[in-house]
Amino acid sequence: MSHRIVSVSVRDVRFPTSLEQHGSDAMHTDPDYSAAYVVLHTACGLRGFGLTFTLGKGTEIVVLAVEALADLVVGKSLQDIVKDFRGFYRLLTSDGQMRWLGPEKGVIQLATAAVLNAVWDLWARAEGKPLWKLLVDMAPALHDCSIKTHLYSNIYYLSELFFFLSLLPEDRMMKEGYPAYTTSCAWLGYSDQQLKQLCTDALKSGWTKFKVKVGANLDDDIHRCRLIRQTIGPNNTLMIDANQRWDVAEAISWVTSLSEFKPLWIEEPTSPDDILGHAAISKALAPLGIGVATGEQCANRVMFKQFLQASALQFVQIDSCRLGSVNENLAVLLMAHKFQVPVCPHAGGVGLCELVQHLILFDYICVSASLSNRMCEYVDHLHEHFTSPVVIQNAHYMPPKDPGYSCEMLESSVQRHQYPEGDTWKLLMNK
Amino acid sequence: MSHRIVSVSVRDVRFPTSLEQHGSDAMHTDPDYSAAYVVLHTACGLRGFGLTFTLGKGTEIVVLAVEALADLVVGKSLQDIVKDFRGFYRLLTSDGQMRWLGPEKGVIQLATAAVLNAVWDLWARAEGKPLWKLLVDMAPALHDCSIKTHLYSNIYYLSELFFFLSLLPEDRMMKEGYPAYTTSCAWLGYSDQQLKQLCTDALKSGWTKFKVKVGANLDDDIHRCRLIRQTIGPNNTLMIDANQRWDVAEAISWVTSLSEFKPLWIEEPTSPDDILGHAAISKALAPLGIGVATGEQCANRVMFKQFLQASALQFVQIDSCRLGSVNENLAVLLMAHKFQVPVCPHAGGVGLCELVQHLILFDYICVSASLSNRMCEYVDHLHEHFTSPVVIQNAHYMPPKDPGYSCEMLESSVQRHQYPEGDTWKLLMNK
Repeated sequence: MSHRIVSVSVRDVRFPTSLEQHGSDAMHTDPDYSAAYVVLHTACGLRGFGLTFTLGKGTEIVVLAVEALADLVVGKSLQDIVKDFRGFYRLLTSDGQMRWLGPEKGVIQLATAAVLNAVWDLWARAEGKPLWKLLVDMAPALHDCSIKTHLYSNIYYLSELFFFLSLLPEDRMMKEGYPAYTTSCAWLGYSDQQLKQLCTDALKSGWTKFKVKVGANLDDDIHRCRLIRQTIGPNNTLMIDANQRWDVAEAISWVTSLSEFKPLWIEEPTSPDDILGHAAISKALAPLGIGVATGEQCANRVMFKQFLQASALQFVQIDSCRLGSVNENLAVLLMAHKFQVPVCPHAGGVGLCELVQHLILFDYICVSASLSNRMCEYVDHLHEHFTSPVVIQNAHYMPPKDPGYSCEMLESSVQRHQYPEGDTWKLLMNK
Repeated sequence: MSHRIVSVSVRDVRFPTSLEQHGSDAMHTDPDYSAAYVVLHTACGLRGFGLTFTLGKGTEIVVLAVEALADLVVGKSLQDIVKDFRGFYRLLTSDGQMRWLGPEKGVIQLATAAVLNAVWDLWARAEGKPLWKLLVDMAPALHDCSIKTHLYSNIYYLSELFFFLSLLPEDRMMKEGYPAYTTSCAWLGYSDQQLKQLCTDALKSGWTKFKVKVGANLDDDIHRCRLIRQTIGPNNTLMIDANQRWDVAEAISWVTSLSEFKPLWIEEPTSPDDILGHAAISKALAPLGIGVATGEQCANRVMFKQFLQASALQFVQIDSCRLGSVNENLAVLLMAHKFQVPVCPHAGGVGLCELVQHLILFDYICVSASLSNRMCEYVDHLHEHFTSPVVIQNAHYMPPKDPGYSCEMLESSVQRHQYPEGDTWKLLMNK
């Protein structure tokens, strides 16, 4: 059966998370977790769901970018797309007029991710498999279709990579799930009392890895890191995240001041574009046993390639909506493997956990076959709005079983949170 | 007098340049030169005009991004803005919700440039000076206000720079103008006959520096480079421009095949994000006497900083609409000076020549004081739509004299080319 895409709909969906300071960090003080939410409609009735994550204001710009890309999608059949996915990826990212808006970065890349996430969802549904399983089953074929998606020959050596196709890792995932860490306990806007209570509750639920936001005030950071380290004890894992707040020298000295709390990594210490700056920070912090993690604002494979080439990070944080969907994420997973750097995906926001769990499952089963220093971010927000929300058991992501890429939202949630016409926003605006 | 900004208008203006293959290159085969065109209206009636350049499709996305930024601008006075221009720059680029869309890259950065170009135009008009002269006269003060605009300490060493304040360079510019090169003769879509005729005409008008587009087909490139080198002779300057068409190894071998035509530089050999790739290409081509030029798709100062640190380019091509307006361009001019790399601005499109001439005049008069290996791109298109179009004499940009940043368009041109409702587009769509 041919799945011809007959229309693309896209909606601006926003959740007023800023009201309770959920998601607050040193650079994003008042995020309203939001999404440009895409539905592909096919002639046979099957639909594909995709999204890209945003922070509220400006989501309308991404929505308009999706509408501009929609012209390139409508009329295509799923079969034609996946037969030449490289060509289709380039069609979206290399349009002679629109590539000027990126290329492959910012708004237009977020929109590309939303559209392609929906295409991958459609494909997985058409095959009746969760996306991770679709990828696992096609691993030999991916050798051809994903690698060739990518433009620059420096990446071609990846075609030499060996794919682990043992069934053992898949069984392990089905039984134990993929290890997660939590960011839900220590947003910058939370009080001491709230932070301590949340950590204590999380420990009881089996969590052993915790991330705390830092970067606004050093004394406050020392206070909060001490509090959380005291609460979680010396053997659990602590990570710190500055959300790009510092310059290079400042990052080194600030993190040195926090080293007594033994963080595994410092995340986003400086500008996400500053590869050489991250390399300098990595070098300076290595003697302290602190790694550098970054990637959630890394827009494409070419940037990740250089981060790896320059030894500028020790933890690769792929993002399911910042890179150009599964296509680019696969390239980054393979490059990370080549450089023997663990991948610890960025998640949270709205829908990011639902999406990225598929990619990290594939990474474990078919690429890395290792859990050493590996874990996937988890934030306990907004999952109730999805038809197949993530399942966490004992601080592990349990592999999703429903067909697709897990980012279909409940229609009632979408309608209620559509901006500005949904009831949630009408109520807030009339207050 | 206080110039309070009371409203911001923005329009989608497109010129159907693709009809005649003007502007065609290896990656952008059918550009319709366009702009998101911004007007700031003040309470006292003075207006500021700014734009960012685009290639047609997708301009509406940039327009919407300008509208999102407008909320941050309306109500501010020019005096408050320029008193803390660093704060205002950060207000636009670090909005807690909107910075997710970049940060400082892609659509949102293009929109930032359009808005800030209009602010600088307003400031220059308020002072009754062309922008370059406003900059020259404030050079000592810039030491404080522009340097501090920038986030990362690696750039702070720039504050050590010495400003040349001699009047001699200004006099020279007024008399001779700033040297230009032409890209108008050799777009990829032009025939041999057309190319030869245009070069011959240009030589007669005093042009000595020519750029040819390459990268689509090697045999064709050899043919075209030979033709243009024969036409311009051995002593005039030839540059080649691949518009990102190649990967790293391909760039090196392709350009080696063209080295017999003695190009001064290869422009945009690969992905604009691939700093380390450009460094490899630079190293490989140095023995051939061919430099690497790039920058027109370099979105911010942090990327330029690394290109310079990694010796990844030998010619810095600033863009007046890709970087965050004058603020970021000043930082790049100063960094280039620090690294002793010549600045040769990107221009062409619509309005880019009008804008960037101001920056390169400032660079010569206050920063570099040198014309060695320096020249500004010129393309002879669409100048007739501006109220103060560039003046070229004997292949030199003559310093503009009218107050402002030279990017006010004729209202009749704007109306005729507004997309999709202007007469030009209505006629084309009804064909």
